[in-house]
Amino acid sequence: MQRYFIEGTVSLNESFVMDDAHIHHIKNVMRAKADDEFNVVDSTGNAYLVRLTDIDPVTYEVIEKINAEVELPVNITLYSPLLKGDKMDVVIQKSTELGAHEFILYKADRSVVKLNSKKEESRLVRYEKIAREASEQSRRTKIPAISFAGALKAMDFTQYDLVLFAYEDNNLTGRSIKDVLKAHNAASVAVVFGPEGGFTEAEAEFFRPYENVALGRRILRAETAPLYALSVIGSYYE
Amino acid sequence: MQRYFIEGTVSLNESFVMDDAHIHHIKNVMRAKADDEFNVVDSTGNAYLVRLTDIDPVTYEVIEKINAEVELPVNITLYSPLLKGDKMDVVIQKSTELGAHEFILYKADRSVVKLNSKKEESRLVRYEKIAREASEQSRRTKIPAISFAGALKAMDFTQYDLVLFAYEDNNLTGRSIKDVLKAHNAASVAVVFGPEGGFTEAEAEFFRPYENVALGRRILRAETAPLYALSVIGSYYE
Repeated sequence: MQRYFIEGTVSLNESFVMDDAHIHHIKNVMRAKADDEFNVVDSTGNAYLVRLTDIDPVTYEVIEKINAEVELPVNITLYSPLLKGDKMDVVIQKSTELGAHEFILYKADRSVVKLNSKKEESRLVRYEKIAREASEQSRRTKIPAISFAGALKAMDFTQYDLVLFAYEDNNLTGRSIKDVLKAHNAASVAVVFGPEGGFTEAEAEFFRPYENVALGRRILRAETAPLYALSVIGSYYE
Repeated sequence: MQRYFIEGTVSLNESFVMDDAHIHHIKNVMRAKADDEFNVVDSTGNAYLVRLTDIDPVTYEVIEKINAEVELPVNITLYSPLLKGDKMDVVIQKSTELGAHEFILYKADRSVVKLNSKKEESRLVRYEKIAREASEQSRRTKIPAISFAGALKAMDFTQYDLVLFAYEDNNLTGRSIKDVLKAHNAASVAVVFGPEGGFTEAEAEFFRPYENVALGRRILRAETAPLYALSVIGSYYE
């Protein structure tokens, strides 16, 4: 069933006019008519079944609250450099489906893609749209936050219960993610991924004190690694 | 390090002329010269470190055997319908990185993409190339087999120790993959995925006797579901 994230909050058995942002989708993509049902998620993260009562303006009545918990019971923050081509789109879309809490797009020593702040701004608009649509499609109640950031060594990782460093050189020697998770009781996990060309020695040195994990024994592409990590962490907690 | 799958077998400390299929890549993509090192995997699945001794013809000496086991200790066969656009390419590439053993592209009741047998043949050439390159890139010693097949109900699933049916309606009620794996000691696992529009009631009925699993609590796209399942199964066994 189609799902829309709306601004503000709604209440049971009352009627509300739909946010402008979704009118085009409801009218022209879904071709909705009176009595059609869909879901809305309000700004507090509550999901509701609603019924369309009028199309001009688009108005709906709130039928019932949906209580199923679909969010992961752990907050996973992905640190990824900007990847080439449409790879970043793929990572944001699929990681959102897999339950990511936040994306921090940092500048790796070997980052290939470099954007000025104006381009970062327009990219952010695109990525936020991808994340919102993926949240709607996968029936989540949260949309992951996305931001650009500087180099890894300038960042504070003490805010996380657990920091996993996904260094490709660890594929045959690193601990497995599930073994590391078993040893902690983490409610917040940061996972740090490298660019297409891998981490530099300096970056690897910076993360020596953190958990250096293997993402299986094969070498994963930069855009595949986050999907593996999210799947494995999600499956551990669910 | 670059890796090539070759026909036939090689022996330590001997010299071999490279298969024609890789000459272009070695000369024009890698721009290799004498003394450059790379890996070859022979037809028995053994991997070797080799050194280039001549470029015309491309000849290499076998230096040492690579004993690291990178293949999953379980054979995972993915049953997927043909997906739209480049989604099948994505599934084959990333599932190969994640260790898939075999792909069977069946005809779902709601399959959108339908090919005649001539088109299937040319698709197979493309998918086999994607799988071979992904095996090389992820440093595997096996290339997954790929084939087209008919409808699910005509197939024999008794050959697998365990059959997982990834029905999206199970996302809130199905058992988790890891719980199912714990209850079995499976050396071969088939995972059956649906098309973009989902399974029909008849297909779901056919798989009622098999393990109906949830792929987390969110609804995954058709091309994301296999990546989740492979990551979780791989992580359980590794």
